[in-house]
Amino acid sequence: MALLSEGLTQVLIPVAALIGLAFALLQWFLVSRVKVSFTSSDGNGCKDKLIMGEEEEGIDNFSVTLKCAEIQNAISEGATSFLYTEYKYLSIFMGVFGVVIFLFLGSVKGFSTESEPCTYNTGNMCKPALANAIFSTVAFLLGALTSVISGFLGMKIATYANARTTLEARKGVGKAFITAFRSGAVMGFLLAANGLLVLYITIHLFKLYYGDDWEGLYESITGYGLGGSSMALFGRVGGGIYTKAADVGADLVGKVERNIPEDDPRNPAVIADNVGDNVGDIAGMGSDLFGSYAESTCAALFVASISSFGVTHNYVAMSYPLIISSMGIVVCLITTLFATDLFEIKNASEIEPSLKRQLVISTVLMTAGIAVVTLVALPSEFTMFSFGTDKTVKNWYLFFCVSMGLWAGLVIGYTTEYYTSNAYSPVQDVADSCRTGAATNVIFGLALGYKSVIIPVFAIAFAIYVSFSLAAMYGIAVAALGMLSTISTGLAIDAYGPISDNAGGIAEMAGMSHEIRERTDALDAAGNTTAAIGKGFAIGSAALVSLALFGAYVSRAGIETVDVLTPKVFIGLLVGAMLPYWFSAMTMKSVGSAALKMVEEVRRQFNTIPGLMEGTAKPDYATCVKISTDASLKEMIPPGALVMLTPLIAGTFFGVETLAGVLAGSLVSGVQVAISASNTGGAWDNAKKYIEAGNSEHAKSLGPKGSDPHKAAVIGDTIGDPLKDTSGPSLNILIKLMAVESLVFAPFFAAHGGLIFKWL
Amino acid sequence: MALLSEGLTQVLIPVAALIGLAFALLQWFLVSRVKVSFTSSDGNGCKDKLIMGEEEEGIDNFSVTLKCAEIQNAISEGATSFLYTEYKYLSIFMGVFGVVIFLFLGSVKGFSTESEPCTYNTGNMCKPALANAIFSTVAFLLGALTSVISGFLGMKIATYANARTTLEARKGVGKAFITAFRSGAVMGFLLAANGLLVLYITIHLFKLYYGDDWEGLYESITGYGLGGSSMALFGRVGGGIYTKAADVGADLVGKVERNIPEDDPRNPAVIADNVGDNVGDIAGMGSDLFGSYAESTCAALFVASISSFGVTHNYVAMSYPLIISSMGIVVCLITTLFATDLFEIKNASEIEPSLKRQLVISTVLMTAGIAVVTLVALPSEFTMFSFGTDKTVKNWYLFFCVSMGLWAGLVIGYTTEYYTSNAYSPVQDVADSCRTGAATNVIFGLALGYKSVIIPVFAIAFAIYVSFSLAAMYGIAVAALGMLSTISTGLAIDAYGPISDNAGGIAEMAGMSHEIRERTDALDAAGNTTAAIGKGFAIGSAALVSLALFGAYVSRAGIETVDVLTPKVFIGLLVGAMLPYWFSAMTMKSVGSAALKMVEEVRRQFNTIPGLMEGTAKPDYATCVKISTDASLKEMIPPGALVMLTPLIAGTFFGVETLAGVLAGSLVSGVQVAISASNTGGAWDNAKKYIEAGNSEHAKSLGPKGSDPHKAAVIGDTIGDPLKDTSGPSLNILIKLMAVESLVFAPFFAAHGGLIFKWL
Repeated sequence: MALLSEGLTQVLIPVAALIGLAFALLQWFLVSRVKVSFTSSDGNGCKDKLIMGEEEEGIDNFSVTLKCAEIQNAISEGATSFLYTEYKYLSIFMGVFGVVIFLFLGSVKGFSTESEPCTYNTGNMCKPALANAIFSTVAFLLGALTSVISGFLGMKIATYANARTTLEARKGVGKAFITAFRSGAVMGFLLAANGLLVLYITIHLFKLYYGDDWEGLYESITGYGLGGSSMALFGRVGGGIYTKAADVGADLVGKVERNIPEDDPRNPAVIADNVGDNVGDIAGMGSDLFGSYAESTCAALFVASISSFGVTHNYVAMSYPLIISSMGIVVCLITTLFATDLFEIKNASEIEPSLKRQLVISTVLMTAGIAVVTLVALPSEFTMFSFGTDKTVKNWYLFFCVSMGLWAGLVIGYTTEYYTSNAYSPVQDVADSCRTGAATNVIFGLALGYKSVIIPVFAIAFAIYVSFSLAAMYGIAVAALGMLSTISTGLAIDAYGPISDNAGGIAEMAGMSHEIRERTDALDAAGNTTAAIGKGFAIGSAALVSLALFGAYVSRAGIETVDVLTPKVFIGLLVGAMLPYWFSAMTMKSVGSAALKMVEEVRRQFNTIPGLMEGTAKPDYATCVKISTDASLKEMIPPGALVMLTPLIAGTFFGVETLAGVLAGSLVSGVQVAISASNTGGAWDNAKKYIEAGNSEHAKSLGPKGSDPHKAAVIGDTIGDPLKDTSGPSLNILIKLMAVESLVFAPFFAAHGGLIFKWL
Repeated sequence: MALLSEGLTQVLIPVAALIGLAFALLQWFLVSRVKVSFTSSDGNGCKDKLIMGEEEEGIDNFSVTLKCAEIQNAISEGATSFLYTEYKYLSIFMGVFGVVIFLFLGSVKGFSTESEPCTYNTGNMCKPALANAIFSTVAFLLGALTSVISGFLGMKIATYANARTTLEARKGVGKAFITAFRSGAVMGFLLAANGLLVLYITIHLFKLYYGDDWEGLYESITGYGLGGSSMALFGRVGGGIYTKAADVGADLVGKVERNIPEDDPRNPAVIADNVGDNVGDIAGMGSDLFGSYAESTCAALFVASISSFGVTHNYVAMSYPLIISSMGIVVCLITTLFATDLFEIKNASEIEPSLKRQLVISTVLMTAGIAVVTLVALPSEFTMFSFGTDKTVKNWYLFFCVSMGLWAGLVIGYTTEYYTSNAYSPVQDVADSCRTGAATNVIFGLALGYKSVIIPVFAIAFAIYVSFSLAAMYGIAVAALGMLSTISTGLAIDAYGPISDNAGGIAEMAGMSHEIRERTDALDAAGNTTAAIGKGFAIGSAALVSLALFGAYVSRAGIETVDVLTPKVFIGLLVGAMLPYWFSAMTMKSVGSAALKMVEEVRRQFNTIPGLMEGTAKPDYATCVKISTDASLKEMIPPGALVMLTPLIAGTFFGVETLAGVLAGSLVSGVQVAISASNTGGAWDNAKKYIEAGNSEHAKSLGPKGSDPHKAAVIGDTIGDPLKDTSGPSLNILIKLMAVESLVFAPFFAAHGGLIFKWL
């Protein structure tokens, strides 16, 4: 029926994944050509200067290279040791939760090993519920593992690249940009290709057992999404608390009290701060986007498995979500060449346009790619299951669904940029309000964040309406996939930010000249905006993914309507809408408390270590790293428990309908809180940078560093830190994770849930 | 069937209202016995000192009395003139919107004057849709007028009482408390009695035309709620912007830059600030709670009119909501005596317990009252219409519904107190975080606000579940009425706050001694907490009222399910959840901009008027008053338009189902934003007061005034101002008003709405 044959599909998907991996390795190789010497004896640093063509300031300074290597080493060791500790705790969680999944799902039919009649593929027999329990658990563990590997590899690359970016900055802003961007690309492609490959292999291995029972197969595959997202939750929350406790603590004493610059090596919290960038913004975000990707694919596969081509076992059509991701890898590969090879960055003002061009190029190319994939992979007409009724869908409908998601992502990205870049009036207004002090700065910043939700919400609503109308829940799931299809490029842009930030920190700590620091600052400023854009993507895709998962959950739990007019659903909706607040309260308070501890420690060191302020004595970095580590590991448990337990409690005690209300409520409320928190924080950060850079008459009138308006801006920036890097982005995961967890546990809730209402 | 006869009911309701009015006048008379001389020639001030028994410090100081009178006069004139200007604009709005109501509702059946078959009372004929259009418009205008009168009278009483409270403070804290509390009671009883009486009379006048057509009668009565709430919106938003622009502006220059105390007469914005308390906190809040009261009564009456006793024309049972309010007036009257006559306040520490006792006493007494009313007014069993099905309800079910609302209110009140009073650890933690500066103060404050939504949301959800399960939407409506049944006491406590605040301001401006200021500060601190409790009540009741109105809207629009799984409803839900953010962005930005203008003007005056800082020259108060007036009148239009137009646009273009989604979304999201905003602001305010008062070792270690932690606390307080007094409380009205407007326009939307989907 479709143009693509089954055999070709089976080859194309892994080939695309392997191409992605190869491209990532190539980029890594290119980055590795910048040498950083770790010992003074191997002479690499010395040879380095002979290899390099253009000799610039500091380039022949061997001690600087050595210092960079030392700092990079310290950061990398700190990050690795934190992640190992974190993963140690998480492996316990994975084990326990794996048992929970097995027991809950196994008990659906009392651990019976007998086959059952299928639900949708009527007349046929499907595998027992016990098999579902076992394979869901395995898929969960695989998802968790892939997520952990994604985060860890991302961190490794970022810490490998930061000092290299600093060293390249000596030769000019263009070289430094290429290094940072290539490193981001390594992460982006590794993650996308890895996710696709593991999922592809898992499906084929599971198929060895499941055979023709596709319902059971794709039901158990949803565990992969749950595994990915639950690791992402702890990664985001733990990493977010780590990085912001260090950042806030370092700023409050260093910048505000002691009046020393950011990333000054005399600040005891400076290493913890730089480690934080890598474990929070890089590893956390990598796990987060991997989770979104895994979940949207699982949601699409699950919904497809109960469609007409699922029931008739059309392998090519079923693989549509995977083929889109394969096409995405190829498109992103071409897109990357535009930034690294086809155009050259000559001065700082070209960086931001170049990064934004990446978004536009990938979106335009991908639109064509989607058209091709849709044409060759799907039958011209088929039916989708839509909450008790069947819906006839034409293949070109799906082109619109996927594209709608893709372009909604671009709209969200550009809106985010408008509200968080200091090139436009919103951030400039916030900067201007610093004239009258920190209070007006905060009032204007909060108002900006609230306002910035309007367009994204309309864009998401429009995408939902169109794709839902065209192809029911499958439309939503592939719209989410569309938004995530350019994930490699998105991640490359996103990871570029913290790498540049770290590069700046290393330049400062290694005592490099002011000019180098200005170059890395220019990279970093562009990175701030792209980080905000990345967060916009993350939350936009999370909204679509959660809705798709919500739809899959509702189908699997056998609910036909989620009627707001029933008290069960309404109270779920109300309580669900409250959860993002509860969650944010926990994470914000955690950052605040950990930062207070950090402040005390940093103050203590300044007061008790003689010669620290003068630069003659070294601070005790390790204690600060330990404070961040302990705080984040301890404090990630309550918010994590809130998210993991809510669906279990709501489903078991209040039943599938109340849980549906909770999911819908947390989704519509969480989107708003997450977008406003991220953008408020981004705006404050860039308002501060706007005053510091002083690139216009207006900006100059507010500055320079140390002026009263600048001090007010620093306060705003500090408040924004936990909003934009801890609570805001973690909320994406809250809404996704509760939905995917409900989906996985749906058979249990449908069979045994709603205990309270049964008792009454 | 019921114990109460129709004739007796017809007498009892107006009698209760008249008792309330009489009691209000009595309290007014008692307050008026404190003489404030307005001219030096009438000699009242001199005589006064002869009448008073205990002579205390300053009591014989004639010039102080005169000064108080002058200041009171200035505040009263400023407030009166602002309200007149505001009402002038609002009368234009009322006229225009009245025409809109008439045209929309008239066009439902093409302005036909022919009678139609009834919808629920099958077999009978009901009045034409045109009559509904006319009477809805009239009811709207009456509701608007009653709301305006309520707000205006409240303001008059408050400005009448503030200087009297100051003068009484010379005799001791107990006397001052009684004066402030009695004045609050005047407002509370006037408003409750007035609302009940006007509604009672309107129903009986409308009945002259409608006769046996109760469906039409109570449909048109809903216009009363719409009128009340739309005035409340503008009152809250306009008043909120006025008061906070002045407050923030005055604080930023006076306290932060010039280091002069709050309410210092040298500050040019001080009169505007005090005027603001009266037009925002008093008039705005009066209109708000009147709106809630009117709407919940209308919602209950409308739902009752299509119940079995509505269809069979059981007058006594139909009047159940009005009888509950009548009982409420009597209960609150007794409760008030506990504060004014049965117990005496001897020192400052007794104030807060005494106010909180009011809440408990009124709740306990009212529970008994509800039992009596339910027993005598309702038939022992009847059926309620519940979205297409009938539900059998026993009369004692309703006792639980009403009580559930009443007690949920108490739970919300106490939770609010816990999170905003500086007697407990949450606020003390926020105060403690000021040690490390304004940034951590803001982070902790925001986290506190987020956390404070948890218990209220569970309380509301529980009340909703129980009352919905027992008596469908009628249960929700009477639960809301239950929460509002003790409105007289609630308002008395609430109005007491701003009166005390003003009294403190007058003491400062009149140059009274430090001791007097301390007494009024003690009154004010208790008032801050009760104001937060009042806001908790307002938002809790708004949630219940909106849900009841939502249910009535759904019934009237003929919708049988509001299914989240349809794209129409879901996008409504998502966009609806965004509206509170859009609205808050507007109001916060308005306060910020107006405050910037105020800051510039205040700075200008300090810089250009010679001798102002030394106290030898008088500032130009009038210009500051004008800035606040102009800003609030101009800036209240966009948020007002957002709220008023959203239901019209959603209903007309997207239809009744999308609108239902919008209402549900804004309700569940708005509750969270409103509660967290109010409590965050309240906590910051009291954290500052905690440091200033220095009543414990811990508080002393943070102070005194002017210390770094205190400065950080002042910044938090300033940020909290627009959150707690402008955007937070206005959100109550957003959710109520959109619901009642949808209810009024439901026949039009059902007949002609959803244009876009019709076109597609």
